[in-house]
Amino acid sequence: MSQAKPTILKIGGSVITDKSKEMEVRMDAISRLADEIFEANPKNLIIIHGGGSFGHPLARKYALKEGFKDASQIVGFAETHHVMTVLNGLFMDALIWRGIPAVSIPPSSCALTKNGRIACFEETPLKRLLEMGFTPVLYGDTVLDTELGFTILSGDQLTSFLALRFNAERILIGVDVDGLYDADPKTNVKAKMFEHLSLEELKKTHGLLGGSNGCDVTGGMANKIAELIPAVERGIPVLIVNASKPKYLYKALKGEKVKGTLIEKE
Amino acid sequence: MSQAKPTILKIGGSVITDKSKEMEVRMDAISRLADEIFEANPKNLIIIHGGGSFGHPLARKYALKEGFKDASQIVGFAETHHVMTVLNGLFMDALIWRGIPAVSIPPSSCALTKNGRIACFEETPLKRLLEMGFTPVLYGDTVLDTELGFTILSGDQLTSFLALRFNAERILIGVDVDGLYDADPKTNVKAKMFEHLSLEELKKTHGLLGGSNGCDVTGGMANKIAELIPAVERGIPVLIVNASKPKYLYKALKGEKVKGTLIEKE
Repeated sequence: MSQAKPTILKIGGSVITDKSKEMEVRMDAISRLADEIFEANPKNLIIIHGGGSFGHPLARKYALKEGFKDASQIVGFAETHHVMTVLNGLFMDALIWRGIPAVSIPPSSCALTKNGRIACFEETPLKRLLEMGFTPVLYGDTVLDTELGFTILSGDQLTSFLALRFNAERILIGVDVDGLYDADPKTNVKAKMFEHLSLEELKKTHGLLGGSNGCDVTGGMANKIAELIPAVERGIPVLIVNASKPKYLYKALKGEKVKGTLIEKE
Repeated sequence: MSQAKPTILKIGGSVITDKSKEMEVRMDAISRLADEIFEANPKNLIIIHGGGSFGHPLARKYALKEGFKDASQIVGFAETHHVMTVLNGLFMDALIWRGIPAVSIPPSSCALTKNGRIACFEETPLKRLLEMGFTPVLYGDTVLDTELGFTILSGDQLTSFLALRFNAERILIGVDVDGLYDADPKTNVKAKMFEHLSLEELKKTHGLLGGSNGCDVTGGMANKIAELIPAVERGIPVLIVNASKPKYLYKALKGEKVKGTLIEKE
């Protein structure tokens, strides 16, 4: 049984779904990513994917992140979790049909938060699956919360949590832009990409980019990065790559040179 | 938050799938059962369903019940779990579209067995979901095993375990025959159905029916019943009804008079 450090791969919801439409999956992207994961054949891999146009619109509609307010949200919670299992199922199909021994683990079955932060995580099944050579797959999900009743657990928080808990070798973040920019590259042609950031530079940059106060000039990326700071502090390198472009993720998994933003402690 | 005793409803795989074909769902049965559950509107309900023609053929193909023997089973485990999530997803769809706040809990994420018997079950999410008014849904699943590596956890074992753990008010078993017979009613027209069995009668009958030695004359029912003996011993009544016939399950959920086999301690 292997005790090697795992790679944590987070795939953004914007890569595998079309966020401009409700419940619109990008099956071509899922198939290509499954091909790339199969070909790279990394050992000790944990995959986490986002909710994109499946989980997010319903979570907003029922205001699930803010917690339990009234009974109408109960069915909303069930519905939101269910559409996430549907998106996860499409991703699992693609992995398993290629012979990747992927096993899904819904966070709602094993995690409990306190005011939105993971307070309790039943790690035994995940740990043993990893040791036996399986590829555990988790996702942003509805979860129960000791203070709020329930809330949303983001794939980003889960990524950082699992990286710390399992002492990950590295974190790979697959998104639909080339890396972390000083402005939103989708709306600002002058946006400049960072190729390398130290923890100190990241913290400085993060403040300048507005990541900490919700006015995030990078198109949401800075807020996601904030979740990863504790993992970088622990010495776990984070590589952000464009998973919407062919072979970027493959190269990142193989440790080959690829365009992206590398964040390291020093 | 309700602390009332739950009803445990087990729906057999032969009710919701066609066991004569591989991966053949009975969507008409699933839709009708979801209607009946919605109309009966029971409080504190935990649902468990079997694998039928989804999980069983693959579990046999890869000999998963016997535990880890070689690496080829690893993908088989992943595949078997995945097809169970597909069957579960079809059932969840039907429940949620009717407004039933159902949340699926894969046993592979929260249970661990030792030589095939549940050794560890992370019950917090299930317990809290129930308290908040959700309907947790579990199923027969592939699970990790401390001695065997992995194995199959049957919906029947899970039913008895959860009934004891949550001190259930009653157990309802929905099958595709009218109750427990003294022979297989599908092949023997002279088979006689038991309407009521005390624990003592059940134990005597169980021995006579061959339930304990694998040569089960009732078409598999006696072996399933064996799992439920500890729950009956604790005083939890078990009602076996035909869930393939319209309104039987509805009546059972409502506590109305319905044809079936009732097993009670005294």
